[in-house]
Amino acid sequence: VARRIKRTYAHKTLIVSVAKGIESESLKLMHQVLEEELQPLSLAVLSGPSHAEEVARGIPTSVAVASKSEDVSQWVQKLFMNDRFRIYTNPDLLGVELGGALKNVISIAAGISDGLGYGDNTKSALLTRGLAEMTRLGVAMGARRETFYGLAGVGDLITTAFSAYGRNRKVGELLGKGMKLNEALATTEMVAEGVKTSIAVEHLSKKYSVEVPISQKVYQVLYEGLAPIKAVQELMLREAKPESSDS
Amino acid sequence: VARRIKRTYAHKTLIVSVAKGIESESLKLMHQVLEEELQPLSLAVLSGPSHAEEVARGIPTSVAVASKSEDVSQWVQKLFMNDRFRIYTNPDLLGVELGGALKNVISIAAGISDGLGYGDNTKSALLTRGLAEMTRLGVAMGARRETFYGLAGVGDLITTAFSAYGRNRKVGELLGKGMKLNEALATTEMVAEGVKTSIAVEHLSKKYSVEVPISQKVYQVLYEGLAPIKAVQELMLREAKPESSDS
Repeated sequence: VARRIKRTYAHKTLIVSVAKGIESESLKLMHQVLEEELQPLSLAVLSGPSHAEEVARGIPTSVAVASKSEDVSQWVQKLFMNDRFRIYTNPDLLGVELGGALKNVISIAAGISDGLGYGDNTKSALLTRGLAEMTRLGVAMGARRETFYGLAGVGDLITTAFSAYGRNRKVGELLGKGMKLNEALATTEMVAEGVKTSIAVEHLSKKYSVEVPISQKVYQVLYEGLAPIKAVQELMLREAKPESSDS
Repeated sequence: VARRIKRTYAHKTLIVSVAKGIESESLKLMHQVLEEELQPLSLAVLSGPSHAEEVARGIPTSVAVASKSEDVSQWVQKLFMNDRFRIYTNPDLLGVELGGALKNVISIAAGISDGLGYGDNTKSALLTRGLAEMTRLGVAMGARRETFYGLAGVGDLITTAFSAYGRNRKVGELLGKGMKLNEALATTEMVAEGVKTSIAVEHLSKKYSVEVPISQKVYQVLYEGLAPIKAVQELMLREAKPESSDS
């Protein structure tokens, strides 16, 4: 998309990115791709729990806006904020983008749990431990810890993992029910971005030497033929340990 | 209950408390009440996303155990842990108890949002901002910040706020649909503890000078006749600001 608009793009035009994901090979985030291709003077990322279907219906929604420039953040806040759409500024561009991308992989795990017929207890535990590993990886990459506890982190994670609109959750559910990946993906025309992001997370966890047990199991289910039920069992059977975001 | 078992209680008997709440007048937590009444040698608190209905069915569940003594925590971990029930130790007794209690109030807010017909966007925002105010109050009271990002904090909050079994969420939903508090409470024999905890949180927020806007709105809906829809509108119309857990 960035390359396509390059010829007509004026550098002073504000870009607000709402795309979520990580390039599988370069491991670049969308704001990095946009900076590289377009060199915009003003760039912001908008992210948070905001299903488009609900925003369009005027359902009260809150999101985070991040930019390297506080002025740009406040500009976007002023442009879009109203009594149904609430925007918080956040200086952590990297964290806000990572939250939106990493949560898609954890949401596949939540869907797998649903597909296996497990309940809210299992899903909440997966999301909590999943949030811990998203935070761990993000902090290692230079993001701020608190971003993952905000709208673009836990907020977006919850929506994606519980909602009927959650495409990543849905793909996970179909896998949990025994479908193959290509069959699951063929059921929808929409993109389940976590399926690709999972590859990037697998690389990033190695690059930054960070353990991401849940994301790793998702990767193994997606690409290495690990049975979903075995994935959950292996997660539940890990050695007993203290609760902390470092392990 | 503590007073009732006092005569036959032997101090060396391990107590594992799974009760969640705060005494409305004394503002004491359950472990403080138990310590005062029974002076147990070994006391632990078990908390986290664990609907009894699902635990009984053998659904994979993860919880936190907290005690002033690491030995006691490990003892409880060893006693109850198996491949369906996973226990993480946490040294923060106060935080683990507070997470379980405070989340009930936020879950009423989540239910109100459901009752008003709002969607996942609104609920996720309420839960995210609710988690921030739980953390703020807990930290002011001496609990550890990270506990609120773990199983006994965000994990339990998610389950309670989304689950069909969530009684606090259900009471909130009925209020959101226009029922009066006494009518809503009369629909179930089970206890919606958040209705009482809300009073304690109102006192605690003043005692520790901590802003808890969502819990405060819940209190006003429950006890001061604030209309649910006005409560949500007032939350959405608060002045635009940066995202942080301190405001």
